[in-house]
Amino acid sequence: MLVSLMKGVELGSAMRMSEVIEDVTEVGADRVAVVTGPNLAREIAARMPAAAVVACTDEAVARRLQAACHTPYFRPYTNTDVIGCELGGAVKNVIGLAVGIADGMGLGDNAKGSLITRGLAETTRLGVALGADPLTFSGLAGLGDLVATCSSPLSRNHTFGTNLGRGMTLEETIAATQQTAEGVKSCESVLDLARRHEVDMPITETVFEIVHEGKPPVVAVKELMSRSAKPERR
Amino acid sequence: MLVSLMKGVELGSAMRMSEVIEDVTEVGADRVAVVTGPNLAREIAARMPAAAVVACTDEAVARRLQAACHTPYFRPYTNTDVIGCELGGAVKNVIGLAVGIADGMGLGDNAKGSLITRGLAETTRLGVALGADPLTFSGLAGLGDLVATCSSPLSRNHTFGTNLGRGMTLEETIAATQQTAEGVKSCESVLDLARRHEVDMPITETVFEIVHEGKPPVVAVKELMSRSAKPERR
Repeated sequence: MLVSLMKGVELGSAMRMSEVIEDVTEVGADRVAVVTGPNLAREIAARMPAAAVVACTDEAVARRLQAACHTPYFRPYTNTDVIGCELGGAVKNVIGLAVGIADGMGLGDNAKGSLITRGLAETTRLGVALGADPLTFSGLAGLGDLVATCSSPLSRNHTFGTNLGRGMTLEETIAATQQTAEGVKSCESVLDLARRHEVDMPITETVFEIVHEGKPPVVAVKELMSRSAKPERR
Repeated sequence: MLVSLMKGVELGSAMRMSEVIEDVTEVGADRVAVVTGPNLAREIAARMPAAAVVACTDEAVARRLQAACHTPYFRPYTNTDVIGCELGGAVKNVIGLAVGIADGMGLGDNAKGSLITRGLAETTRLGVALGADPLTFSGLAGLGDLVATCSSPLSRNHTFGTNLGRGMTLEETIAATQQTAEGVKSCESVLDLARRHEVDMPITETVFEIVHEGKPPVVAVKELMSRSAKPERR
Protein backbone atom coordinates (compact mmCIF):
# COMPACT_ATOMS: atom_id res chain seq x y z
CA MET A 1 0.00 0.00 0.00
CA LEU A 2 1.40 3.40 -0.98
CA VAL A 3 0.22 6.63 0.69
CA SER A 4 0.52 10.04 -0.98
CA LEU A 5 0.73 13.17 1.17
CA MET A 6 1.52 15.42 -1.81
CA LYS A 7 -0.71 18.16 -3.23
CA GLY A 8 -0.52 19.52 -6.75
CA VAL A 9 -0.81 18.89 -10.48
CA GLU A 10 2.38 18.14 -12.43
CA LEU A 11 3.43 20.92 -14.81
CA GLY A 12 3.45 19.68 -18.41
CA SER A 13 1.74 16.29 -17.94
CA ALA A 14 -1.16 17.74 -15.86
CA MET A 15 -1.13 14.50 -13.84
CA ARG A 16 -2.35 14.26 -10.24
CA MET A 17 0.22 13.07 -7.66
CA SER A 18 -1.31 9.56 -7.28
CA GLU A 19 -1.18 9.22 -11.07
CA VAL A 20 2.52 10.10 -10.98
CA ILE A 21 3.04 7.44 -8.26
CA GLU A 22 1.17 4.83 -10.29
CA ASP A 23 3.13 5.79 -13.40
CA VAL A 24 6.51 5.57 -11.68
CA THR A 25 5.92 2.53 -9.45
CA GLU A 26 3.52 0.60 -11.73
CA VAL A 27 1.39 -0.13 -8.65
CA GLY A 28 -2.38 -0.27 -9.33
CA ALA A 29 -4.76 2.52 -8.24
CA ASP A 30 -6.42 0.19 -5.71
CA ARG A 31 -3.19 0.14 -3.70
CA VAL A 32 -2.43 3.89 -3.84
CA ALA A 33 -4.14 5.95 -1.11
CA VAL A 34 -4.21 9.69 -0.47
CA VAL A 35 -4.38 11.41 2.94
CA THR A 36 -5.49 15.03 2.70
CA GLY A 37 -7.64 17.71 4.36
CA PRO A 38 -7.13 20.66 6.74
CA ASN A 39 -3.77 19.39 8.02
CA LEU A 40 -1.32 22.23 8.62
CA ALA A 41 1.76 20.21 9.60
CA ARG A 42 2.89 22.37 12.49
CA GLU A 43 -0.48 22.00 14.26
CA ILE A 44 -0.56 18.22 13.82
CA ALA A 45 2.98 17.97 15.19
CA ALA A 46 1.68 19.90 18.23
CA ARG A 47 -1.14 17.33 18.55
CA MET A 48 -3.85 19.93 18.05
CA PRO A 49 -7.19 18.41 16.89
CA ALA A 50 -7.76 17.90 13.15
CA ALA A 51 -9.95 15.85 10.83
CA ALA A 52 -8.70 14.37 7.56
CA VAL A 53 -9.74 12.23 4.60
CA VAL A 54 -8.21 8.86 3.70
CA ALA A 55 -9.05 8.23 0.06
CA CYS A 56 -8.60 5.09 -2.00
CA THR A 57 -10.64 3.56 -4.82
CA ASP A 58 -10.64 0.34 -2.72
CA GLU A 59 -12.68 1.19 0.38
CA ALA A 60 -11.20 -1.70 2.40
CA VAL A 61 -7.72 -0.22 1.93
CA ALA A 62 -9.02 3.20 3.04
CA ARG A 63 -10.54 1.63 6.16
CA ARG A 64 -7.30 -0.13 7.12
CA LEU A 65 -5.40 3.12 6.79
CA GLN A 66 -8.11 4.96 8.76
CA ALA A 67 -7.72 2.50 11.65
CA ALA A 68 -3.94 2.83 11.50
CA CYS A 69 -3.85 6.62 11.85
CA HIS A 70 -6.89 7.39 14.07
CA THR A 71 -5.74 9.04 17.34
CA PRO A 72 -7.43 11.20 20.00
CA TYR A 73 -6.28 14.32 18.11
CA PHE A 74 -6.40 13.08 14.48
CA ARG A 75 -9.79 12.00 13.12
CA PRO A 76 -9.71 10.45 9.62
CA TYR A 77 -12.81 9.83 7.48
CA THR A 78 -12.77 7.41 4.51
CA ASN A 79 -13.65 8.42 0.94
CA THR A 80 -13.39 6.51 -2.36
CA ASP A 81 -13.25 9.61 -4.58
CA VAL A 82 -9.47 9.91 -5.06
CA ILE A 83 -9.77 12.33 -8.00
CA GLY A 84 -11.92 14.79 -6.04
CA CYS A 85 -9.78 14.59 -2.89
CA GLU A 86 -6.57 15.27 -4.83
CA LEU A 87 -7.99 18.14 -6.90
CA GLY A 88 -9.28 19.87 -3.76
CA GLY A 89 -5.75 19.98 -2.37
CA ALA A 90 -4.23 21.11 -5.67
CA VAL A 91 -6.59 24.00 -6.45
CA LYS A 92 -6.84 25.37 -2.89
CA ASN A 93 -3.43 27.02 -3.21
CA VAL A 94 -4.70 29.03 -6.18
CA ILE A 95 -7.90 30.11 -4.42
CA GLY A 96 -5.86 30.84 -1.27
CA LEU A 97 -3.72 33.19 -3.35
CA ALA A 98 -6.89 34.91 -4.65
CA VAL A 99 -8.19 35.35 -1.08
CA GLY A 100 -4.81 36.78 -0.04
CA ILE A 101 -4.97 39.30 -2.90
CA ALA A 102 -8.52 40.31 -1.84
CA ASP A 103 -7.36 40.70 1.78
CA GLY A 104 -4.42 42.82 0.63
CA MET A 105 -6.88 45.05 -1.26
CA GLY A 106 -9.05 45.36 1.88
CA LEU A 107 -12.14 43.95 0.14
CA GLY A 108 -13.69 42.60 3.37
CA ASP A 109 -15.26 39.40 4.66
CA ASN A 110 -18.21 39.25 2.24
CA ALA A 111 -15.71 39.16 -0.62
CA LYS A 112 -13.71 36.49 1.24
CA GLY A 113 -16.81 34.30 1.70
CA SER A 114 -17.81 34.85 -1.93
CA LEU A 115 -14.34 34.09 -3.31
CA ILE A 116 -13.98 30.89 -1.28
CA THR A 117 -17.43 29.72 -2.38
CA ARG A 118 -17.10 30.57 -6.07
CA GLY A 119 -13.51 29.26 -6.01
CA LEU A 120 -14.81 25.96 -4.71
CA ALA A 121 -17.59 26.04 -7.34
CA GLU A 122 -15.07 26.25 -10.19
CA THR A 123 -12.90 23.57 -8.53
CA THR A 124 -16.01 21.38 -8.44
CA ARG A 125 -16.72 22.03 -12.15
CA LEU A 126 -13.20 20.88 -13.00
CA GLY A 127 -13.58 17.85 -10.71
CA VAL A 128 -16.85 16.76 -12.30
CA ALA A 129 -15.28 17.04 -15.77
CA LEU A 130 -12.50 14.70 -14.55
CA GLY A 131 -14.94 12.20 -13.01
CA ALA A 132 -15.00 13.33 -9.37
CA ASP A 133 -18.08 13.41 -7.11
CA PRO A 134 -19.20 17.06 -6.66
CA LEU A 135 -19.94 16.47 -2.95
CA THR A 136 -16.27 15.69 -2.24
CA PHE A 137 -15.49 19.39 -2.65
CA SER A 138 -17.79 20.39 0.20
CA GLY A 139 -15.88 17.95 2.41
CA LEU A 140 -12.59 18.06 4.30
CA ALA A 141 -10.38 17.72 1.20
CA GLY A 142 -12.12 20.65 -0.51
CA LEU A 143 -13.77 23.17 1.77
CA GLY A 144 -11.92 22.08 4.94
CA ASP A 145 -8.44 22.40 3.49
CA LEU A 146 -9.32 25.68 1.74
CA VAL A 147 -10.68 27.28 4.93
CA ALA A 148 -7.64 26.20 6.98
CA THR A 149 -5.33 27.64 4.32
CA CYS A 150 -7.24 30.92 4.09
CA SER A 151 -7.41 31.28 7.91
CA SER A 152 -3.78 30.56 8.65
CA PRO A 153 -1.49 33.55 9.14
CA LEU A 154 1.38 31.14 8.43
CA SER A 155 0.18 30.38 4.88
CA ARG A 156 2.69 31.43 2.25
CA ASN A 157 -0.02 31.73 -0.40
CA HIS A 158 -1.93 34.15 1.78
CA THR A 159 1.08 36.33 2.63
CA PHE A 160 2.17 36.31 -0.99
CA GLY A 161 -1.30 37.30 -2.20
CA THR A 162 -1.61 40.03 0.40
CA ASN A 163 1.53 41.69 -0.94
CA LEU A 164 0.24 41.48 -4.52
CA GLY A 165 -3.10 42.93 -3.40
CA ARG A 166 -1.30 45.87 -1.80
CA GLY A 167 0.13 46.73 -5.21
CA MET A 168 3.54 45.01 -5.26
CA THR A 169 4.66 43.41 -8.53
CA LEU A 170 5.51 39.69 -8.66
CA GLU A 171 9.23 40.49 -8.47
CA GLU A 172 8.81 42.82 -5.50
CA THR A 173 6.66 40.20 -3.73
CA ILE A 174 9.23 37.44 -4.25
CA ALA A 175 11.95 39.81 -2.97
CA ALA A 176 9.85 40.76 0.08
CA THR A 177 8.85 37.22 1.07
CA GLN A 178 12.19 35.64 0.06
CA GLN A 179 10.25 32.78 -1.53
CA THR A 180 7.48 31.97 -3.99
CA ALA A 181 4.08 30.44 -3.18
CA GLU A 182 2.71 27.11 -4.40
CA GLY A 183 -0.30 28.83 -5.96
CA VAL A 184 1.97 30.71 -8.36
CA LYS A 185 2.98 27.45 -10.04
CA SER A 186 -0.31 25.65 -9.47
CA CYS A 187 -2.45 28.23 -11.26
CA GLU A 188 -0.54 27.37 -14.44
CA SER A 189 -1.00 23.57 -14.28
CA VAL A 190 -4.61 23.84 -13.03
CA LEU A 191 -5.47 26.23 -15.86
CA ASP A 192 -3.83 23.80 -18.31
CA LEU A 193 -6.02 20.98 -16.96
CA ALA A 194 -9.14 23.21 -17.16
CA ARG A 195 -8.46 24.13 -20.78
CA ARG A 196 -7.86 20.49 -21.76
CA HIS A 197 -11.35 19.72 -20.39
CA GLU A 198 -12.99 22.98 -21.56
CA VAL A 199 -13.93 24.04 -18.02
CA ASP A 200 -14.50 27.72 -17.21
CA MET A 201 -12.40 28.76 -14.16
CA PRO A 202 -12.62 32.58 -13.96
CA ILE A 203 -10.94 32.95 -10.54
CA THR A 204 -7.99 30.68 -11.43
CA GLU A 205 -7.66 32.51 -14.75
CA THR A 206 -7.66 35.86 -12.96
CA VAL A 207 -4.95 34.70 -10.54
CA PHE A 208 -2.89 33.61 -13.55
CA GLU A 209 -3.35 37.01 -15.22
CA ILE A 210 -2.39 38.92 -12.06
CA VAL A 211 0.62 36.73 -11.23
CA HIS A 212 2.02 35.96 -14.68
CA GLU A 213 0.73 38.76 -16.92
CA GLY A 214 0.83 41.73 -14.52
CA LYS A 215 -2.90 42.53 -14.62
CA PRO A 216 -3.72 45.08 -11.88
CA PRO A 217 -5.92 43.44 -9.16
CA VAL A 218 -8.36 46.39 -9.24
CA VAL A 219 -9.09 45.76 -12.93
CA ALA A 220 -9.46 42.03 -12.26
CA VAL A 221 -12.07 42.56 -9.51
CA LYS A 222 -14.14 44.84 -11.79
CA GLU A 223 -14.10 42.20 -14.52
CA LEU A 224 -15.11 39.35 -12.16
CA MET A 225 -17.99 41.38 -10.69
CA SER A 226 -19.34 42.45 -14.08
CA ARG A 227 -19.62 38.97 -15.64
CA SER A 228 -23.19 38.27 -16.81
CA ALA A 229 -25.72 37.34 -14.10
CA LYS A 230 -26.18 33.58 -13.66
CA PRO A 231 -27.99 30.86 -11.73
CA GLU A 232 -25.83 29.62 -8.83
CA ARG A 233 -25.47 26.21 -10.51
CA ARG A 234 -25.35 25.45 -14.21
CA MET B 1 -43.62 39.74 -4.56
CA LEU B 2 -42.36 39.56 -0.97
CA VAL B 3 -38.64 39.40 -0.15
CA SER B 4 -37.32 37.97 3.12
CA LEU B 5 -33.96 39.14 4.47
CA MET B 6 -34.41 37.31 7.80
CA LYS B 7 -32.35 34.36 9.04
CA GLY B 8 -33.48 31.87 11.64
CA VAL B 9 -35.94 29.15 12.65
CA GLU B 10 -38.93 30.18 14.82
CA LEU B 11 -38.77 28.84 18.40
CA GLY B 12 -41.71 26.56 19.12
CA SER B 13 -43.11 26.18 15.58
CA ALA B 14 -39.70 25.36 14.01
CA MET B 15 -40.83 27.25 10.89
CA ARG B 16 -38.43 28.91 8.45
CA MET B 17 -38.87 32.69 7.96
CA SER B 18 -40.48 32.38 4.51
CA GLU B 19 -42.96 29.90 5.99
CA VAL B 20 -43.83 32.44 8.69
CA ILE B 21 -44.35 35.08 5.95
CA GLU B 22 -46.59 32.72 3.96
CA ASP B 23 -48.51 31.83 7.11
CA VAL B 24 -49.09 35.43 8.15
CA THR B 25 -49.72 37.01 4.72
CA GLU B 26 -51.37 34.02 3.00
CA VAL B 27 -49.24 34.75 -0.08
CA GLY B 28 -48.15 31.65 -2.04
CA ALA B 29 -44.57 30.30 -1.94
CA ASP B 30 -44.07 31.21 -5.62
CA ARG B 31 -44.29 34.90 -4.68
CA VAL B 32 -42.06 34.79 -1.58
CA ALA B 33 -38.33 35.17 -2.33
CA VAL B 34 -35.29 35.01 -0.06
CA VAL B 35 -32.06 37.02 -0.44
CA THR B 36 -29.18 35.55 1.53
CA GLY B 37 -25.43 34.79 1.42
CA PRO B 38 -22.20 36.35 2.72
CA ASN B 39 -23.76 39.81 3.19
CA LEU B 40 -22.44 41.54 6.31
CA ALA B 41 -24.60 44.70 6.23
CA ARG B 42 -21.90 47.18 7.11
CA GLU B 43 -19.74 46.08 4.16
CA ILE B 44 -22.63 46.27 1.68
CA ALA B 45 -23.50 49.76 2.93
CA ALA B 46 -19.85 50.68 2.22
CA ARG B 47 -20.29 49.28 -1.34
CA MET B 48 -17.62 46.62 -0.85
CA PRO B 49 -17.97 43.69 -3.32
CA ALA B 50 -20.21 40.77 -2.35
CA ALA B 51 -22.08 37.91 -4.02
CA ALA B 52 -25.53 36.74 -2.90
CA VAL B 53 -28.30 34.27 -3.69
CA VAL B 54 -31.82 35.23 -4.74
CA ALA B 55 -34.00 32.18 -4.07
CA CYS B 56 -37.59 31.54 -5.09
CA THR B 57 -39.43 28.35 -6.08
CA ASP B 58 -40.50 30.28 -9.22
CA GLU B 59 -37.29 30.86 -11.19
CA ALA B 60 -38.78 33.73 -13.20
CA VAL B 61 -39.46 35.63 -9.98
CA ALA B 62 -35.87 35.00 -8.85
CA ARG B 63 -34.56 36.31 -12.18
CA ARG B 64 -36.61 39.52 -11.96
CA LEU B 65 -35.28 40.16 -8.46
CA GLN B 66 -31.73 39.35 -9.61
CA ALA B 67 -31.98 41.98 -12.35
CA ALA B 68 -33.41 44.50 -9.88
CA CYS B 69 -30.56 44.26 -7.36
CA HIS B 70 -27.47 43.54 -9.56
CA THR B 71 -24.93 46.37 -9.17
CA PRO B 72 -21.19 46.72 -9.82
CA TYR B 73 -20.53 45.77 -6.16
CA PHE B 74 -23.43 43.35 -5.50
CA ARG B 75 -23.57 40.16 -7.60
CA PRO B 76 -26.70 38.02 -7.09
CA TYR B 77 -27.07 34.43 -8.38
CA THR B 78 -30.48 32.77 -8.71
CA ASN B 79 -31.46 29.52 -6.95
CA THR B 80 -34.80 27.70 -6.69
CA ASP B 81 -33.94 25.80 -3.48
CA VAL B 82 -35.57 28.10 -0.91
CA ILE B 83 -35.42 25.50 1.90
CA GLY B 84 -31.67 24.98 1.52
CA CYS B 85 -30.90 28.70 1.22
CA GLU B 86 -32.87 29.53 4.38
CA LEU B 87 -31.43 26.67 6.46
CA GLY B 88 -27.87 27.68 5.55
CA GLY B 89 -28.46 31.13 7.04
CA ALA B 90 -30.19 29.75 10.14
CA VAL B 91 -27.61 27.12 11.13
CA LYS B 92 -24.51 29.23 10.38
CA ASN B 93 -24.95 31.17 13.62
CA VAL B 94 -24.69 27.91 15.58
CA ILE B 95 -21.59 26.73 13.71
CA GLY B 96 -20.14 30.25 14.01
CA LEU B 97 -20.54 29.97 17.77
CA ALA B 98 -18.75 26.58 17.72
CA VAL B 99 -15.86 28.07 15.73
CA GLY B 100 -15.67 30.97 18.19
CA ILE B 101 -15.44 28.51 21.10
CA ALA B 102 -12.65 26.60 19.30
CA ASP B 103 -10.79 29.87 18.65
CA GLY B 104 -11.17 30.83 22.32
CA MET B 105 -9.66 27.47 23.28
CA GLY B 106 -6.75 28.07 20.87
CA LEU B 107 -7.45 24.88 18.88
CA GLY B 108 -5.91 26.23 15.66
CA ASP B 109 -6.78 26.47 11.97
CA ASN B 110 -7.05 22.73 11.23
CA ALA B 111 -9.78 22.53 13.85
CA LYS B 112 -11.43 25.61 12.35
CA GLY B 113 -11.42 24.07 8.84
CA SER B 114 -12.70 20.75 10.24
CA LEU B 115 -15.48 22.36 12.31
CA ILE B 116 -16.73 24.49 9.41
CA THR B 117 -16.73 21.45 7.11
CA ARG B 118 -18.38 19.01 9.50
CA GLY B 119 -20.76 21.78 10.62
CA LEU B 120 -21.81 22.24 7.02
CA ALA B 121 -22.11 18.44 6.63
CA GLU B 122 -24.63 18.21 9.47
CA THR B 123 -26.48 21.27 8.13
CA THR B 124 -26.68 19.46 4.78
CA ARG B 125 -28.05 16.30 6.45
CA LEU B 126 -30.81 18.37 8.05
CA GLY B 127 -31.49 20.12 4.75
CA VAL B 128 -31.80 16.87 2.80
CA ALA B 129 -34.25 15.55 5.42
CA LEU B 130 -36.35 18.69 4.86
CA GLY B 131 -36.23 18.39 1.04
CA ALA B 132 -33.31 20.71 0.19
CA ASP B 133 -30.69 20.09 -2.50
CA PRO B 134 -27.38 19.08 -0.82
CA LEU B 135 -25.36 21.21 -3.27
CA THR B 136 -27.04 24.40 -2.02
CA PHE B 137 -24.98 24.13 1.18
CA SER B 138 -21.69 24.34 -0.71
CA GLY B 139 -22.94 27.57 -2.27
CA LEU B 140 -23.15 31.19 -1.13
CA ALA B 141 -26.10 30.67 1.25
CA GLY B 142 -24.28 27.83 3.04
CA LEU B 143 -20.51 27.87 2.84
CA GLY B 144 -20.25 31.53 1.75
CA ASP B 145 -22.29 32.93 4.60
CA LEU B 146 -20.61 30.62 7.13
CA VAL B 147 -17.09 31.65 6.08
CA ALA B 148 -17.94 35.37 6.16
CA THR B 149 -19.41 34.95 9.65
CA CYS B 150 -16.43 32.97 10.92
CA SER B 151 -13.92 35.44 9.42
CA SER B 152 -15.51 38.63 10.65
CA PRO B 153 -14.07 40.14 13.83
CA LEU B 154 -17.38 42.04 14.13
CA SER B 155 -19.45 38.84 14.44
CA ARG B 156 -21.26 38.62 17.78
CA ASN B 157 -21.44 34.83 17.59
CA HIS B 158 -17.70 34.65 17.22
CA THR B 159 -16.91 37.04 20.09
CA PHE B 160 -19.46 35.31 22.28
CA GLY B 161 -18.02 31.87 21.49
CA THR B 162 -14.46 33.06 22.07
CA ASN B 163 -15.37 34.11 25.62
CA LEU B 164 -17.01 30.74 26.29
CA GLY B 165 -13.95 28.95 24.90
CA ARG B 166 -11.72 30.92 27.27
CA GLY B 167 -13.65 29.43 30.16
CA MET B 168 -16.34 32.05 30.96
CA THR B 169 -19.80 30.80 31.91
CA LEU B 170 -22.84 31.84 29.87
CA GLU B 171 -23.73 34.49 32.46
CA GLU B 172 -20.20 35.92 32.54
CA THR B 173 -20.15 36.01 28.72
CA ILE B 174 -23.47 37.86 28.52
CA ALA B 175 -22.19 40.33 31.13
CA ALA B 176 -18.90 40.82 29.26
CA THR B 177 -20.42 41.31 25.79
CA GLN B 178 -23.50 43.19 27.07
CA GLN B 179 -25.63 41.15 24.69
CA THR B 180 -26.47 37.60 23.63
CA ALA B 181 -25.65 35.99 20.26
CA GLU B 182 -28.12 34.65 17.71
CA GLY B 183 -26.56 31.20 17.85
CA VAL B 184 -27.54 30.87 21.53
CA LYS B 185 -31.23 30.89 20.57
CA SER B 186 -30.80 29.22 17.18
CA CYS B 187 -29.11 26.10 18.56
CA GLU B 188 -32.34 25.38 20.43
CA SER B 189 -34.73 25.71 17.46
CA VAL B 190 -32.32 24.00 15.04
CA LEU B 191 -31.90 21.07 17.43
CA ASP B 192 -35.70 20.88 17.78
CA LEU B 193 -35.99 20.68 13.97
CA ALA B 194 -33.24 18.02 13.81
CA ARG B 195 -34.94 15.85 16.44
CA ARG B 196 -38.31 16.12 14.67
CA HIS B 197 -36.62 14.73 11.54
CA GLU B 198 -34.32 12.30 13.37
CA VAL B 199 -31.16 13.92 12.02
CA ASP B 200 -27.84 13.54 13.88
CA MET B 201 -26.24 16.98 14.47
CA PRO B 202 -23.35 16.41 16.90
CA ILE B 203 -21.83 19.91 16.64
CA THR B 204 -25.17 21.71 17.14
CA GLU B 205 -25.92 19.37 20.05
CA THR B 206 -22.52 20.14 21.59
CA VAL B 207 -23.07 23.89 21.27
CA PHE B 208 -26.43 23.43 23.02
CA GLU B 209 -24.80 21.45 25.84
CA ILE B 210 -22.04 24.04 26.33
CA VAL B 211 -24.36 27.05 26.17
CA HIS B 212 -27.46 25.76 27.96
CA GLU B 213 -26.22 22.90 30.14
CA GLY B 214 -22.81 24.19 31.17
CA LYS B 215 -20.74 21.37 29.65
CA PRO B 216 -17.01 22.32 29.75
CA PRO B 217 -15.72 22.89 26.16
CA VAL B 218 -12.66 20.69 26.84
CA VAL B 219 -14.91 17.71 27.61
CA ALA B 220 -17.01 18.47 24.51
CA VAL B 221 -13.97 18.43 22.19
CA LYS B 222 -12.81 15.07 23.56
CA GLU B 223 -16.25 13.59 22.95
CA LEU B 224 -16.49 14.93 19.39
CA MET B 225 -13.03 13.63 18.50
CA SER B 226 -13.66 10.16 19.94
CA ARG B 227 -16.88 9.40 18.05
CA SER B 228 -16.56 6.18 16.05
CA ALA B 229 -14.61 6.39 12.76
CA LYS B 230 -16.82 6.90 9.70
CA PRO B 231 -16.86 7.36 5.94
CA GLU B 232 -16.99 11.07 5.05
CA ARG B 233 -20.50 10.67 3.61
CA ARG B 234 -23.23 8.31 4.72
